Amino acid sequence: MDLESVKRYLEKGSGLLEDDDKNRSAIDGIPNRFFERFIMQGLHVDFVEPGRVICSMKVPPRLLNAGNFLHGGATATLVDLVGSAVIFTVGAPQTGVSVEINVSYLDAAYVNEEIEIEARILRVGKAVGVVSVEFRKKKTGKIIAQGRHTKYLAVSSKM
Amino acid sequence: MDLESVKRYLEKGSGLLEDDDKNRSAIDGIPNRFFERFIMQGLHVDFVEPGRVICSMKVPPRLLNAGNFLHGGATATLVDLVGSAVIFTVGAPQTGVSVEINVSYLDAAYVNEEIEIEARILRVGKAVGVVSVEFRKKKTGKIIAQGRHTKYLAVSSKM
Amino acid sequence: MDLESVKRYLEKGSGLLEDDDKNRSAIDGIPNRFFERFIMQGLHVDFVEPGRVICSMKVPPRLLNAGNFLHGGATATLVDLVGSAVIFTVGAPQTGVSVEINVSYLDAAYVNEEIEIEARILRVGKAVGVVSVEFRKKKTGKIIAQGRHTKYLAVSSKM
Amino acid sequence: MDLESVKRYLEKGSGLLEDDDKNRSAIDGIPNRFFERFIMQGLHVDFVEPGRVICSMKVPPRLLNAGNFLHGGATATLVDLVGSAVIFTVGAPQTGVSVEINVSYLDAAYVNEEIEIEARILRVGKAVGVVSVEFRKKKTGKIIAQGRHTKYLAVSSKM
Repeated sequence: MDLESVKRYLEKGSGLLEDDDKNRSAIDGIPNRFFERFIMQGLHVDFVEPGRVICSMKVPPRLLNAGNFLHGGATATLVDLVGSAVIFTVGAPQTGVSVEINVSYLDAAYVNEEIEIEARILRVGKAVGVVSVEFRKKKTGKIIAQGRHTKYLAVSSKM
Repeated sequence: MDLESVKRYLEKGSGLLEDDDKNRSAIDGIPNRFFERFIMQGLHVDFVEPGRVICSMKVPPRLLNAGNFLHGGATATLVDLVGSAVIFTVGAPQTGVSVEINVSYLDAAYVNEEIEIEARILRVGKAVGVVSVEFRKKKTGKIIAQGRHTKYLAVSSKM
Repeated sequence: MDLESVKRYLEKGSGLLEDDDKNRSAIDGIPNRFFERFIMQGLHVDFVEPGRVICSMKVPPRLLNAGNFLHGGATATLVDLVGSAVIFTVGAPQTGVSVEINVSYLDAAYVNEEIEIEARILRVGKAVGVVSVEFRKKKTGKIIAQGRHTKYLAVSSKM
Repeated sequence: MDLESVKRYLEKGSGLLEDDDKNRSAIDGIPNRFFERFIMQGLHVDFVEPGRVICSMKVPPRLLNAGNFLHGGATATLVDLVGSAVIFTVGAPQTGVSVEINVSYLDAAYVNEEIEIEARILRVGKAVGVVSVEFRKKKTGKIIAQGRHTKYLAVSSKM
């Protein structure tokens, strides 16, 4: 790809959504902080206990990448969100701020596929919390992705 | 937070967007694969050379988290997207599939703040590419986040 | 700490091993590639099946850090080594080369404490293998560390 | 490899150091906390300023892996050690405890090759410090590895 095309790809997208004016107007109407809702709409909590949350979701068309499977950025965001929620299950008054997120991508999840997301606390101390999040295909149990999320919990004091 | 509230937080959001019907209808109208556009709209490419891309962006209200700064999931997605684009700059015919993404969060970027995103190739071989992505405040150069993105490039053959 | 002390700390160590001549002569006698043995001596394999290995080890004095608990570098090396061995259990003829290693440190393991190390394959394809490795206190099951190891397996061809 | 061989590999090593009795006696004489010295002996500090340290090292035979290049575990340990030392350069009274370490492996460093290790502070706050560490071939500047090290600094209080 020549350098001009790289620029166009980043600024205009992969050409799958060609009508830029339409995109811009769609985006102009979006409320503040809509990002979380954009990701989580359709997420269902199947199980919750102190230290563990299991959710499920049917991969929605809006979260697909150019290869037509669940976007890696959406997966990383779910590591952030479900990984934050599980910290609340042990009575933490707030989930703190993110220090580090990592994700390994192991398999593709295609549109309308049912996936299961399990978040598990590895450690919650006074200052640092670490959570593991695993994505699996609901039908087969095959692992789609695995990540960890490190948070600084004592945000009232200075990080 | 009690367990029922954790469930509600994940399924309905943080209460900042209370009108669930309105959310659902907003989301119903969203085109397929809109996620990338949702993140990248407003991104500008300032500089591109083989092995390096520098973009800038004004933090948009739609990508804020509950703390009113750039959402960690959006940052991770930009590591994915800008980190993929930079691989094109060295003539790779495709950017492959993600193997691993990690991000360290170092500072907050508030609404309308100008940020700079620099992606740099650490290695592109026949099969594996690794890219570093750094987010800085444009005014001060202060680092907001730093991540790495590992891709498997030979996707025509089996990963 | 002043800059000169930082230099001395890196070049001479933390002062716990003061006799530099003695150190140097101890090190001069060390055989090639001794590093792996230095780490693994005393490791015992308790269980092995395709895709999973469980080892145990009594934290040896030689692997302590200045805080007198298992050194983070030793933990990372065990993620590498036990995480490589588990790839052999599914019949891979070789374990490839490391692409990425990450470790979260969750608790301290003190001298002579019995620890358990469990490595589990998350994915082994033709080209990329990913393994999860967890360290636990044998007595309580408490997690000491969790890491992931990504390898490129097809090393006969070019990475 | 059959399961019995995996067990033998972990407990006895790769067969490169066959004389187990000799290994054991070599190891029995090793002083407490020798691990850091084992890694760092031969490291030279070329440059140090607040927030940045540059070291160099000739890859020593003792730190090679079975492929005869610098062991990934040794690299990870140097991310830990040099990444900790750089925190001292900004006057921190202690370097805290490790929260997370990650490393991407990009190229091999062979025996006696001169490598350069640059550690740079990305952030040092009251509680959390994050450092980036890059390994390069001294002759060509080619990147061998890049890692990040996250530390919790306020260890007198509870993590």
